[in-house]
Amino acid sequence: MSAVSLESFTKKYKELVEIRLDELVTGLQAPEQVKEAMSYSLKAGGKRIRPVLLFATLHAFKKDPALGLEAAAALEMIHTYSLIHDDLPSMDNDDLRRGKPTNHKVYGEATAILAGDGLLTYSFEVLCGTKGASPEKIIRLISLLAKSAGPEGMVGGQAADMEGENKSLTVEELQYIHKNKTGRLLAFSVMAAAILADATESQVRSLEDYAYHIGLAFQIQDDILDIEGREDKMGKRVGSDESKFKSTYPSLLTLDGAKEKLKSHLIKGKSALASSDLDNGLLVDIADMIASRDH
Amino acid sequence: MSAVSLESFTKKYKELVEIRLDELVTGLQAPEQVKEAMSYSLKAGGKRIRPVLLFATLHAFKKDPALGLEAAAALEMIHTYSLIHDDLPSMDNDDLRRGKPTNHKVYGEATAILAGDGLLTYSFEVLCGTKGASPEKIIRLISLLAKSAGPEGMVGGQAADMEGENKSLTVEELQYIHKNKTGRLLAFSVMAAAILADATESQVRSLEDYAYHIGLAFQIQDDILDIEGREDKMGKRVGSDESKFKSTYPSLLTLDGAKEKLKSHLIKGKSALASSDLDNGLLVDIADMIASRDH
Repeated sequence: MSAVSLESFTKKYKELVEIRLDELVTGLQAPEQVKEAMSYSLKAGGKRIRPVLLFATLHAFKKDPALGLEAAAALEMIHTYSLIHDDLPSMDNDDLRRGKPTNHKVYGEATAILAGDGLLTYSFEVLCGTKGASPEKIIRLISLLAKSAGPEGMVGGQAADMEGENKSLTVEELQYIHKNKTGRLLAFSVMAAAILADATESQVRSLEDYAYHIGLAFQIQDDILDIEGREDKMGKRVGSDESKFKSTYPSLLTLDGAKEKLKSHLIKGKSALASSDLDNGLLVDIADMIASRDH
Repeated sequence: MSAVSLESFTKKYKELVEIRLDELVTGLQAPEQVKEAMSYSLKAGGKRIRPVLLFATLHAFKKDPALGLEAAAALEMIHTYSLIHDDLPSMDNDDLRRGKPTNHKVYGEATAILAGDGLLTYSFEVLCGTKGASPEKIIRLISLLAKSAGPEGMVGGQAADMEGENKSLTVEELQYIHKNKTGRLLAFSVMAAAILADATESQVRSLEDYAYHIGLAFQIQDDILDIEGREDKMGKRVGSDESKFKSTYPSLLTLDGAKEKLKSHLIKGKSALASSDLDNGLLVDIADMIASRDH
């Protein structure tokens, strides 16, 4: 068990990053409409899992989590842009996200596209302002974020996901999609903290392993929730994967098979941590939270 | 007159950046469809004015233009992403660009959005690899590019442009749009070279002035070409501004008034250079080229 509870840690640092995100967007000299659209999606709530994971990893290194504030804000901007673009009519065509109308439903498609582009671009400017890190480290952060979010990462995963619709995928193909679409930004959360904390090579390997397994666990739980979740908790329609003929872990492995796989990734993720010399309490709790969340 | 002709300089460095762009995209480990869509628009030709301007500014500092290769490639990626997104049905809804079907016409909207997102994100990774520059300089380049392309720059200009449709704008409002939508990336071309070449403050001021005036000259000439241009040279429908009820310089100032304004910006841009101690030949030729181009 960690000395700090995940609940109190999350509350504190979720608030910290939310305040910073608000400051960062409010301070922009830009047309009101696009600023409002950027804020709307940034403020639409969510669990801020990525920032919390980044802060918790810094905590595991016994560093001040606030060192990761700019990186966490940049990361959440990128995550938010990806949700805005993924929800567009030509992509997943979703009307609801976290119980609220999606960005394009409120502001129209053109502004939603621009709000996404704006968040994506701005995130790199924000990273440039990382405090307490050498220029070399800042460049490593920027390069890793761009790689994780770009064609070899999240954008590639989303492209493969679109191509995979109405097709029956293998587990390997599904794994490629999720490793990139969801996994790479989750991995960035952990690796950004490792860069900021001067992790050793063996610590980096443990954390990479951990991030890989919790990334897949996250996605499998997402698929399970799409079947078993309650709409009031999810804030979106459940059963939407099936109605879009998307391959999912339960559709390929059965629901029980998916639950087995989730459990196995959870165990592997935690054991990767166990072999490291980090103060792992919060990271273990986050792995458990990811596997058991109900929305 | 410059010792080097703009024509031979352009030919050489246009080819250099085009080869680099091709290498950068070909080397990506990403789904074929999105790579192809990225390449399609990168290869759709164009004058590569921004890269040439960057290289020519380095030349004006008597530096090796190739120092700016990664910055020029990143810049052209951002310019290309902006064209792909601007052409989308929910934005300008254009079917043709440089005489070829626009990206979404060939690959569909979802892939076009992702190709744009991919180019935008990748450009920052490319900049991180700038050779022969200190980490501090690389961060200045990244920060400036993000600011120039983001909500306070190009994205803001495009947002204001969309809001301005079907409205009658003042010359000041039109200037805001173009300063940001087109001007900021042109200014980056010049300022990126200034950063790489360790420009003095007075050189920076001269170049900022130059970039501001040629940016506006560029846009005014664009508006004039939309009326006077020949479709076969332009590679797109002419008269499209009028049919979309867009405010333009000729609609606000008359065609003759717009031509006067173009001339005045050209003179101011060149005189900003004259007061600097740079080897200005190519930059003067580029200003003339921008004001007299027929496509």
